[in-house]
Amino acid sequence: MITKTFKWIGGVDGHLEIIDQRKLPGEYKTLRCSNVKQLYDAIKTLAVRGAPAIGVAGAYGTVLSLQGVSAKASLKQALTVLKRDCEYLASSRPTAVNLRWAIERIVKCAENRVTGNQGIRVSGYQGSKGAGTLLELRKVVLAEANDICREDVEMCRKIGANGARFVTRASSPWKHGQDGRATISILTHCNAGALATAGQGTALSVLYEAKKRGKKFRVFVDETRPLLQGARLTAWELKRAKIDTTVICDNMAAALMRDGKIDMVVTGADRIAGNGDAANKTGTYGLSVLAKAHGIPFYIAAPSSTFDLKTKTGKDIPIEQRSADEVRFCGGKKVTPDGVKIYNPAFDVTPAENITAIITERGVIKKPNANKIAKHLA
Amino acid sequence: MITKTFKWIGGVDGHLEIIDQRKLPGEYKTLRCSNVKQLYDAIKTLAVRGAPAIGVAGAYGTVLSLQGVSAKASLKQALTVLKRDCEYLASSRPTAVNLRWAIERIVKCAENRVTGNQGIRVSGYQGSKGAGTLLELRKVVLAEANDICREDVEMCRKIGANGARFVTRASSPWKHGQDGRATISILTHCNAGALATAGQGTALSVLYEAKKRGKKFRVFVDETRPLLQGARLTAWELKRAKIDTTVICDNMAAALMRDGKIDMVVTGADRIAGNGDAANKTGTYGLSVLAKAHGIPFYIAAPSSTFDLKTKTGKDIPIEQRSADEVRFCGGKKVTPDGVKIYNPAFDVTPAENITAIITERGVIKKPNANKIAKHLA
Repeated sequence: MITKTFKWIGGVDGHLEIIDQRKLPGEYKTLRCSNVKQLYDAIKTLAVRGAPAIGVAGAYGTVLSLQGVSAKASLKQALTVLKRDCEYLASSRPTAVNLRWAIERIVKCAENRVTGNQGIRVSGYQGSKGAGTLLELRKVVLAEANDICREDVEMCRKIGANGARFVTRASSPWKHGQDGRATISILTHCNAGALATAGQGTALSVLYEAKKRGKKFRVFVDETRPLLQGARLTAWELKRAKIDTTVICDNMAAALMRDGKIDMVVTGADRIAGNGDAANKTGTYGLSVLAKAHGIPFYIAAPSSTFDLKTKTGKDIPIEQRSADEVRFCGGKKVTPDGVKIYNPAFDVTPAENITAIITERGVIKKPNANKIAKHLA
Repeated sequence: MITKTFKWIGGVDGHLEIIDQRKLPGEYKTLRCSNVKQLYDAIKTLAVRGAPAIGVAGAYGTVLSLQGVSAKASLKQALTVLKRDCEYLASSRPTAVNLRWAIERIVKCAENRVTGNQGIRVSGYQGSKGAGTLLELRKVVLAEANDICREDVEMCRKIGANGARFVTRASSPWKHGQDGRATISILTHCNAGALATAGQGTALSVLYEAKKRGKKFRVFVDETRPLLQGARLTAWELKRAKIDTTVICDNMAAALMRDGKIDMVVTGADRIAGNGDAANKTGTYGLSVLAKAHGIPFYIAAPSSTFDLKTKTGKDIPIEQRSADEVRFCGGKKVTPDGVKIYNPAFDVTPAENITAIITERGVIKKPNANKIAKHLA
């Protein structure tokens, strides 16, 4: 079973039910978000995480916002509440581009409804055009949130479908196929899975689609220090999907490659520059160098919205330094002596020349470069 | 201050005082071993660890053994007790070659004493030759243990002296020296330090000797999952020696190299094959590939006793698989879901072609190969 990281339960009076990722993998619990404050807290404390997932969660937050508006309020008053709540929700993860994008899309849709703008598209809702009742506004907003969610689900599925054919034995015979393995062996890093999207993930969607097509494979999962998203989240959702999963420490990937035990590497990306340089969770760059040195293909799977053409190359991507405590503590226990320095970059940048192909919902960019990327996005 | 991992306190009636590494870095406590059982437990539970260190600790264990012999016992009876205790001590870490080697050396020395063999060398003890009193035997055994300890200290110092000259800026100008750094920057992995020997370590001895020579440098320490010897032990002893120390997660080393922030890598080794392939803590191989890809010199520092000429190449070195729980738990907390597999090799093998030089107490083997190694050891 492929995990659904959240579900909207009910209609305009409904609520959002979220898998509480803070408790994984020890405990599988869902969290009910019935108002804006609860959702803000869920995003802020990483109960829900992953750029696409928090975008869609934020979209449903607007539905929760309008639930809090008095039935006697005017549409203008409702809009004021909505905008205030949206600013509040967006501040839960200030650097999350998808969150602000989704929220702004809903606000714009609501504004158009209130001001009677005819240009809006309200799929799934056949109400009258122009300003109407508060209930009508709430239905429009829910329909838009559902749209954002459906688009995300579809984006994930398409990435998987486009990438599934790369799940195959590595062709370099001097290293591979010497151990009589019948199955393909894949390495992934961090969590670019169902838990990070409204759908079935990006990098992991490639695996889910390969499984649907009957491919036999096993997955090695880097635990992904410091926050262990691989060990905690990726391993959890792969196991749930009945995929053969083995967790390793990040530093063990190289020897597996040398032993001919890895046929391909696939990860997600947080931001891809115009030339194809890709920022992703710390450790991804090292894997790309190791894969290249061992003749193993290295894939990035990400929605086309991940491309940031204003950023020319990876050198222009700012790398967030995160709290030293993430490294200093391991499983809640302090593991470094007092007074030593900690270096904790959240991301690193994999240069385009180390990437065999970038897989998006639109297709595949082999040996990515600025020209091919511009054409892909045109 | 360079750490002394243990001290023998007093004469033949003395005891061994050990830094309890199980409590580091949170707590600095010494552990008093006054009998064989206490020492066995200390070795077994990793209060003292590192091949050279447990060898020397085992040697002092023989002194503790003879303390338990009744003053009325014959020398033959004393020898029987000694041998029994030595078997027991050796069983605390069955794969530790140094432990058995040190213990056997002492037993042989004691046997020679008891049987009156004149060929024995008893430095630091000027007693009469041939069978004597129990007290004389105890003095001979203590003198031999002190010898083993002194030799280890000297071995460490020489490795450092031979390696200190390599602590220098990397010569590849396109990657390095662009950040205006005044200091040299070194990466190490695991703990090949004072805490692993009776002296000042192997890889870390290179740094201690470089510091004595006035070199300015900083050290990045891989935390070294799963057991975090880098974060817990190396960072602790480097900080104690007032060396500028920064802990990173293992997966961050690659990006540091790419940013031109690493001038050299130095690690220890557990076993080196006749052709120069070196087994060391898991993660070392990956570092060697990354160092090569970034034009950074990669050094192994180890005593010449680490060479195992009966092992022709790295392929013949068996790799111990350790308990899944080491990966499954992080700081005492379970971080992987139930039912997923874990792969946890203790070591990996760095091929000779990735090693810039092997530094031993005898000198330096640049670009190691079978011929050069045979000559070095001759």
